[in-house]
Amino acid sequence: MIEDTNTDRTEISGLGEFGLIDHLTKEIKIVNSSTVKGVGDDAAVIDNTGFQTLVSVDLLVEGVHFDLSYTPLRHLGYKAAAVNISDIAAMNGTARQMVVGIALSNRFSLEAVEEIYEGIRMACARYKVDLVGGDTTSSKSGLFLSVTVIGQAKTEDICYRSGANTGDLLCVSGDLGSAYMGLLLLEREKAVFKANPQAQPDLEGHDYVLERQLKPEPRADMVQILRDANLKPTSMIDISDGLASEILHLCKASETGCQIYEDKLPFDPTTLNLAEEFNMIPAIAALNGGEDYELLFTVSQSDFEKVRKIDGISIIGHMTANIGQAHMVTNDGQVIELTAQGWDALKKN
Amino acid sequence: MIEDTNTDRTEISGLGEFGLIDHLTKEIKIVNSSTVKGVGDDAAVIDNTGFQTLVSVDLLVEGVHFDLSYTPLRHLGYKAAAVNISDIAAMNGTARQMVVGIALSNRFSLEAVEEIYEGIRMACARYKVDLVGGDTTSSKSGLFLSVTVIGQAKTEDICYRSGANTGDLLCVSGDLGSAYMGLLLLEREKAVFKANPQAQPDLEGHDYVLERQLKPEPRADMVQILRDANLKPTSMIDISDGLASEILHLCKASETGCQIYEDKLPFDPTTLNLAEEFNMIPAIAALNGGEDYELLFTVSQSDFEKVRKIDGISIIGHMTANIGQAHMVTNDGQVIELTAQGWDALKKN
Repeated sequence: MIEDTNTDRTEISGLGEFGLIDHLTKEIKIVNSSTVKGVGDDAAVIDNTGFQTLVSVDLLVEGVHFDLSYTPLRHLGYKAAAVNISDIAAMNGTARQMVVGIALSNRFSLEAVEEIYEGIRMACARYKVDLVGGDTTSSKSGLFLSVTVIGQAKTEDICYRSGANTGDLLCVSGDLGSAYMGLLLLEREKAVFKANPQAQPDLEGHDYVLERQLKPEPRADMVQILRDANLKPTSMIDISDGLASEILHLCKASETGCQIYEDKLPFDPTTLNLAEEFNMIPAIAALNGGEDYELLFTVSQSDFEKVRKIDGISIIGHMTANIGQAHMVTNDGQVIELTAQGWDALKKN
Repeated sequence: MIEDTNTDRTEISGLGEFGLIDHLTKEIKIVNSSTVKGVGDDAAVIDNTGFQTLVSVDLLVEGVHFDLSYTPLRHLGYKAAAVNISDIAAMNGTARQMVVGIALSNRFSLEAVEEIYEGIRMACARYKVDLVGGDTTSSKSGLFLSVTVIGQAKTEDICYRSGANTGDLLCVSGDLGSAYMGLLLLEREKAVFKANPQAQPDLEGHDYVLERQLKPEPRADMVQILRDANLKPTSMIDISDGLASEILHLCKASETGCQIYEDKLPFDPTTLNLAEEFNMIPAIAALNGGEDYELLFTVSQSDFEKVRKIDGISIIGHMTANIGQAHMVTNDGQVIELTAQGWDALKKN
């Protein structure tokens, strides 16, 4: 399995809370002009004149959202930041600032926290987000990450979940189901490793699906791509819990229904190969798997030509008048009702 | 001890994540005109034109920051919100929005989460803060609360820790050490209860110190009081970790020193009585106890007459040129150096 092979261990308690914060934040450089004051006071200061502020929070909990036996801490930090940046992209906005809370037990060393922070910093650097504050504390057991992201957008650019109209085209960026295939692969190799600790993990050639699971990239680029195409979605959401669950969110918020087509769902070839290996219908991975962090959005039918021209966007269906009901036409012509079998953190106990 | 006597128990898993969020947020009403969109989308939307945005995050971890054997869940929620609102007051700003993350194990029922949320809502109502988003998830063990608060202030009103000058007067709102006395009292009664579960807790007549510990009120009122007096602090911080620790923060950020006088420290009579009962010097409770959530700030000497006239503010010393060094003149005329013996969450393991 992928393990922390760092053999140097510094106890966090030796630094104290303030020492730790100083240590972790000393190399942070501010890149956004809206960031007036970052780490080091009671609150960060942000100047957003002329823009509206977007705020979103996500918790990542050990044993619930991640398994440290195969999740490198740096990837964990990266993913925690990425999934929040994705929430801002889903509003058609740009992430600008981030505050991070970390609670961890004394089985974690200073080097472990540094790895998590390094991952967060890498994601922040890549997406030009300023890390402006945080709280680091101990826990009795386990690792908890809380990330709050602040973004901005012009009022007229913001896309809510509630704006879809009957007849709008339902579109998705990128491909689906790959993060779930990565998870299945990691879980399989963990089971092999448990049965035989001498076994080497068989992850060769699966870089794509593993990256999709361990180090997802939010589609912040899509915000610019849509703007360049002079295209404003009527509604938008990111795919964190699975396509089915997100479609139902759009339907509920917009008071519409939805019909999608199995043969329109976008898959990467490696996802299709792995689905065959795991004897799984690819659409199930897309609908229920989650964690793809692609954007799901609706556009007016009159924008069909604009959206058709954009590489990496698939039109998978359209919104209907059947409020709250979503259906999929399968490859063999059946019509099935979609239910929110999306991954539910509360049922994982 | 104070215990949850609620005998009805609803399992959270029966609701699912989205059902739980709907349930907890259905009665939220928006009160701030800057809150464009609250709970229910990928991110909240805030319009802060003409103001700067302030952001702060705090984690509260079971067994580290609170002990559920004597902390009612409603009080816990209230305190989690209050300590964050205090951070915004410490910037001389006004808290406007809040996002909350809760992770909890399956030993907590729906009623338990409702109690926490009720406490958060009570604090938000009292301080006119909109609860605009959150994330609720399970944990393998224990209860974790993450609160991020968004505030606003005019650029020229914001007080940083770094603005104190040599000769400035050091002032504190309210009284000190009472929250620590409340903690000592609760810990004593817990020990008695452990030794003899039939014993009734002896908390009679100690309402003030218990409220200070269990349900602290942030000094958001002080922001308006200072404004009404046409007084802008040169630096400000809230007292969460203890007076000594906060003074050293101001000294470090402002590149000054500080001298305070033991006989100028403000105490409530009940704190003095309890200090005698616990055989403790009251100044130690003020310096090292923490959690008073009063405001500590500096003003220019030329503002002496203005600050002197305000009820409930004590001038406890002045800033000096001895960078990073803080001293206290004791009641018997000795000069002792202050060290940050403030409560350190990381050393509590």
